Amino acid sequence: MTDIHHRVGVRSSSTDDVYAALTTIDGLAGWWTTDTHGDPELGGKIEFRFPQGGFDMEVAELVPGELVRWRVVDGPPEWLGTTIDWRLSRTEGFTIVRFTHAGWAEPVEFLDHCSTKWAVFLLSLKALVETGTGAPAPDDVAISDWH
Amino acid sequence: MTDIHHRVGVRSSSTDDVYAALTTIDGLAGWWTTDTHGDPELGGKIEFRFPQGGFDMEVAELVPGELVRWRVVDGPPEWLGTTIDWRLSRTEGFTIVRFTHAGWAEPVEFLDHCSTKWAVFLLSLKALVETGTGAPAPDDVAISDWH
Repeated sequence: MTDIHHRVGVRSSSTDDVYAALTTIDGLAGWWTTDTHGDPELGGKIEFRFPQGGFDMEVAELVPGELVRWRVVDGPPEWLGTTIDWRLSRTEGFTIVRFTHAGWAEPVEFLDHCSTKWAVFLLSLKALVETGTGAPAPDDVAISDWH
Repeated sequence: MTDIHHRVGVRSSSTDDVYAALTTIDGLAGWWTTDTHGDPELGGKIEFRFPQGGFDMEVAELVPGELVRWRVVDGPPEWLGTTIDWRLSRTEGFTIVRFTHAGWAEPVEFLDHCSTKWAVFLLSLKALVETGTGAPAPDDVAISDWH
């Protein structure tokens, strides 16, 4: 098993803004992909679509202001059954986001790509909360031939 | 053991430019930190310094145009003894960089930070080769309270 880990700090006055950006369709559409639809409540399914494909996430756990967990229920085979955790905490002036995409079966090249791409989208989330403007797909930062 | 993985594609005509950016002091100073000194030849030691601290790398392996491997010989305790691999290959119009920072003893929060920060510096490397201008420390992109 191989996991992807990231950490960013978002300048904000509480965890509320980041939590909202992770648990509302408008929030998610503001930093990951504009083509986001579905039910962001516990047990709901959110559909994220990109020019290259997409992912369906089941909302597996919600602890307001602290934790969001998704389970990948549809998408590329390497993603099926993996889980994505967003853990929020506070330090002076920042909401700290610890991110884990866990349960990859193998350290394939697609994992390497997704790891870098997750970093780009975490910075998009940070920008959205700090400035009101993120960089969601299809206008996300291209990092390679795989976009 | 936990590893950090990344992948970027650099628009270039051969692997030569990226390889030079990883194996010359001028190249390294152009994307990672301007305060870079030492001997980038095989078996040499390169000293990378940042406002927050620094790392000493031994150049453990060099395969021109294909592979650069560093061993961390001084720096934060979590980094000591870890290895950093840069694997280069070609696909149409791009030099593909596969990056691995291997051998972390534990999945600590500092690893999460370093993973995101490596992504930022890989994009700096990409920018340097593609445009001639990277974003090395101390003018690197800040991602959190840990910079």
